[in-house]
Amino acid sequence: MALRARALYDFRAENPGEVSLRESEFLTLCSDQDIEGWLEGLNSRGERGLFPASYVEVLRGEPVSPQPPPPPPPPAGSHYSTGGYEPTQPSYHIVSPPPLGLRPASLPYQSSQASDDDDWDDEWDDSSSTAADEPSTAAHTSSFYGGFHDYDGSRYRTSTASSISSHKGSATVSRNLNRFSAFVKSGGEAFVLGEAAGFVRDGDKLCAVHGADGPEWQENPHPFSCTIDEPTKQTKFKGMKSYISYRLLPTHTGQPVHRRYKHFDWLYSRLLEKFPLISVPRIPEKQATGRFEEDFISKRRKGLLWWMEHMCSHPVLAHSDAFQHFLTCTDDKAWKPGKRKCERDDMVGANFFLTLSVPPGVPILDPHDVEGKLDGFKTFAKRMDDGVMQLNQTAGEFARKQAAGFRKEYQKVGQAIRGLGQAFEMDQVPFSSGLNRAMAFTGEAYDAIGEMFAQQPRQDLDPIMDLLAVYQGHLANFPDIIHVQRGALTKVRESKKHVEEGKMELQKANDIQERCNVICYATLAEVHHFHKIRVRDFKSQMQHFLRQQISFFQKVTLKLDEALQKYDAA
Amino acid sequence: MALRARALYDFRAENPGEVSLRESEFLTLCSDQDIEGWLEGLNSRGERGLFPASYVEVLRGEPVSPQPPPPPPPPAGSHYSTGGYEPTQPSYHIVSPPPLGLRPASLPYQSSQASDDDDWDDEWDDSSSTAADEPSTAAHTSSFYGGFHDYDGSRYRTSTASSISSHKGSATVSRNLNRFSAFVKSGGEAFVLGEAAGFVRDGDKLCAVHGADGPEWQENPHPFSCTIDEPTKQTKFKGMKSYISYRLLPTHTGQPVHRRYKHFDWLYSRLLEKFPLISVPRIPEKQATGRFEEDFISKRRKGLLWWMEHMCSHPVLAHSDAFQHFLTCTDDKAWKPGKRKCERDDMVGANFFLTLSVPPGVPILDPHDVEGKLDGFKTFAKRMDDGVMQLNQTAGEFARKQAAGFRKEYQKVGQAIRGLGQAFEMDQVPFSSGLNRAMAFTGEAYDAIGEMFAQQPRQDLDPIMDLLAVYQGHLANFPDIIHVQRGALTKVRESKKHVEEGKMELQKANDIQERCNVICYATLAEVHHFHKIRVRDFKSQMQHFLRQQISFFQKVTLKLDEALQKYDAA
Repeated sequence: MALRARALYDFRAENPGEVSLRESEFLTLCSDQDIEGWLEGLNSRGERGLFPASYVEVLRGEPVSPQPPPPPPPPAGSHYSTGGYEPTQPSYHIVSPPPLGLRPASLPYQSSQASDDDDWDDEWDDSSSTAADEPSTAAHTSSFYGGFHDYDGSRYRTSTASSISSHKGSATVSRNLNRFSAFVKSGGEAFVLGEAAGFVRDGDKLCAVHGADGPEWQENPHPFSCTIDEPTKQTKFKGMKSYISYRLLPTHTGQPVHRRYKHFDWLYSRLLEKFPLISVPRIPEKQATGRFEEDFISKRRKGLLWWMEHMCSHPVLAHSDAFQHFLTCTDDKAWKPGKRKCERDDMVGANFFLTLSVPPGVPILDPHDVEGKLDGFKTFAKRMDDGVMQLNQTAGEFARKQAAGFRKEYQKVGQAIRGLGQAFEMDQVPFSSGLNRAMAFTGEAYDAIGEMFAQQPRQDLDPIMDLLAVYQGHLANFPDIIHVQRGALTKVRESKKHVEEGKMELQKANDIQERCNVICYATLAEVHHFHKIRVRDFKSQMQHFLRQQISFFQKVTLKLDEALQKYDAA
Repeated sequence: MALRARALYDFRAENPGEVSLRESEFLTLCSDQDIEGWLEGLNSRGERGLFPASYVEVLRGEPVSPQPPPPPPPPAGSHYSTGGYEPTQPSYHIVSPPPLGLRPASLPYQSSQASDDDDWDDEWDDSSSTAADEPSTAAHTSSFYGGFHDYDGSRYRTSTASSISSHKGSATVSRNLNRFSAFVKSGGEAFVLGEAAGFVRDGDKLCAVHGADGPEWQENPHPFSCTIDEPTKQTKFKGMKSYISYRLLPTHTGQPVHRRYKHFDWLYSRLLEKFPLISVPRIPEKQATGRFEEDFISKRRKGLLWWMEHMCSHPVLAHSDAFQHFLTCTDDKAWKPGKRKCERDDMVGANFFLTLSVPPGVPILDPHDVEGKLDGFKTFAKRMDDGVMQLNQTAGEFARKQAAGFRKEYQKVGQAIRGLGQAFEMDQVPFSSGLNRAMAFTGEAYDAIGEMFAQQPRQDLDPIMDLLAVYQGHLANFPDIIHVQRGALTKVRESKKHVEEGKMELQKANDIQERCNVICYATLAEVHHFHKIRVRDFKSQMQHFLRQQISFFQKVTLKLDEALQKYDAA
């Protein structure tokens, strides 16, 4: 049975990785061992994250003081926050939901996923689920890189655990004390330290190659894409429960499959668990209410389309077993076994790293070069995150202004012209009727133009904002990826030092460096892939945006020209 | 010497026809006879109008109470205000500056004009003149028809003088007691009563003819127009004084003349005095300061162009002696005698009406028809005045919004796109430079579009507002014109009654009706002319507005297209 606790006070999550508590609610703990005053667990709404240990009573029966003590310092500092990252003193970093490097079957996160969706025909349903079924997705919407800017990054770093063990006499590179570190959780540490062991089938191999700009993922020799058709509402249990079903048509099979949001969600969780060094595109936010409203369904479908596009274009993700099962399983009876098989995958955590392979005969990457490149990427990502947030805000504000102020201004002009035209209709002279009709038409044209301004953002600004949301998700994924790579480089440095001090054999240190090199290759390949799709997506979306804007102003021009022609006969 | 008074308290003009006073300032009175508690005169700034008699001390030496008494009810009710006009009880109506039917040489308005501008070479100068040289032009900018809407028109009407004399035994139609009535001031009353006598030369004859839609002015057989070139700054007295000179080129002479604002102003006053039944277009507002600023000069020139256009297209005004002297006098030495001649014109006031002629053999217009037409025009004019004011306000607001909000929104979008592009420049990958350049260009394009929105109102909204100002002037002229016509009809009714009662000879009543018919013809011809130029002007200005708007949106489209093309190479 999972360890349980009860919240003594309300606690409001303020940083990524934290989870809010309500006084008296019951919590499921991942462990009763606190890390610097923080515990990890799930609240009663199924949201997983950290909360102050002093805010809860672990259910063993001790009484506590009635006033809430102050929470400990926030558990995570952004890698991209001010103050810079110092590789010898890694701050630990948590995202929600965190990728799990080791999968102890007793972890509630794991078990809740498995028990919830065991059977194809007896699953939780969209209509019956409440917000409690929907884990926190705060990181989807808030800026990951902006969240911690107010904190001095170094302040929390000083209190984090050093990765150097105090057992100076040990002959091995020690484990990081911070068990929430992405490096540790991903299994990266275990892999670098040579603790991973497993048999890698050829089909599981993920190959990084050396391209023109450095490491990149080996291109998919059989690229495919997948459409998502207009979702339809389905019912079951004699109409008692309803859900939205999407028809997916992958080009490489030509066989349509029907999937629900919960299937996307299952797949997303599998991929997060499986691929620590890869930025898994985020699925659209969950939503507890209004899930059958047209606007929401249309928005979700657009989000899923973006997700699908990014999945299909990723050389590694596109060919993962779970994704292929999701895309190709047309037989309801085969769904469950395939799903189980994916869940039983051995090549996760530390073993996942065994599946990574670098081009043979290529020299080991210079750690300084790698570090420099990733420092550059960190700076870039911070700037891009700021820029994305700024553009998102501006676009949202511009859309609102067009729907309100712009529409109002043009319609007021229309009304005033129409009003004067109506006054003119009382002039008792026959030769003005043409002018009066033309002015009435002009007034209506300006009304229409106001309405066009109000509707236009759906065509141009909304797609831009959808794009920005996808990239906000990617940018929020990278700190963990970089953290794994940093952790590996730190191990290399430590092992070299140990060799110098005669505490480690050279061969062992070389093995560590070789395994670290695999991680460096994969990380740089992933960064390369990010830039590749980013340039592709922003180029095509900016083109789409400008084409839509041009078409909009052309429509306005046509409307005005129509009005102008009315005066020819006036 | 003119009668003088001193202001005892500050008084703020709130309605057309009133003039503001400053405590202790000296005033020139037109008469020391107050009308319902109001006096007429000029304040120290040369503004002519009405003010409460109790607010001033007529300079005979009586002491007064130190607290200002409440002002009497406003002196005028709009003819187009709610409550309707009742022809048997005309409310009296004053506009500023009022047309003067009789020109007693002692009137300060008259004498100040004559003495100020006696000599071509020794005149008041723009640079030395202050606001005191510039009579009130409040009626140019505020809505004449809207000004009194808050008052109940009938309230003031009950206290106005009836035009029926109480001397029942009199054998003639009596004079109107309200000597400020436009009917009286214009000389219309004297004319209708048969008191005008003068020799009308053929060249002075103003012919109304019967057109397709009723009476209209005989078309000008030799139409002409006149350009006004970019004004230049001139100096005299060795640079001590400067003024702006406009180069006018009338097409019917082909000889350029140079005129200053003061010459326009002189001409305008002459025309107002000469033509009571004609809506003399108003010259642009006077301005005490900033007269040499480029914006003001350009705005004034546009106003003068509109004025010139309306002068040249009016069959009566275009051929008036004063206007022709103004347009054609190229010899400085001839200017003064010609000007004097115009000022000595005998055919003004009651005599002016003698110059009007109706087509021979056409039956007398049915007074009911005329009344109905003018009632319709009154309703129309009220609605048009409201519509003009509404469009003027809307256009002004729209121009401000484009210069502020619209510009800001587009420039914020530009800034956000540029910001993201700048973040992208830090990405260390060679294949993104095209995208980065394209995004920088797009950002600049949106900046430029914001600026285009801000500048556009000069091209389309400003001309519309100029047009509306011209028509606000015309609409403010019509109440007086209609009032003269109403007064004449009242006299006809009175004379018929007198005949029925045996108090008047039939021939005398018929003569009155015939003279009234001349006024009806002229009034309807003037209304017809108004509609004709209105339809022409609004048609051409709406076309201009729409063409400018189309051209604007086409420019925006081109700019966006330019940005779009940058992505081809990205």
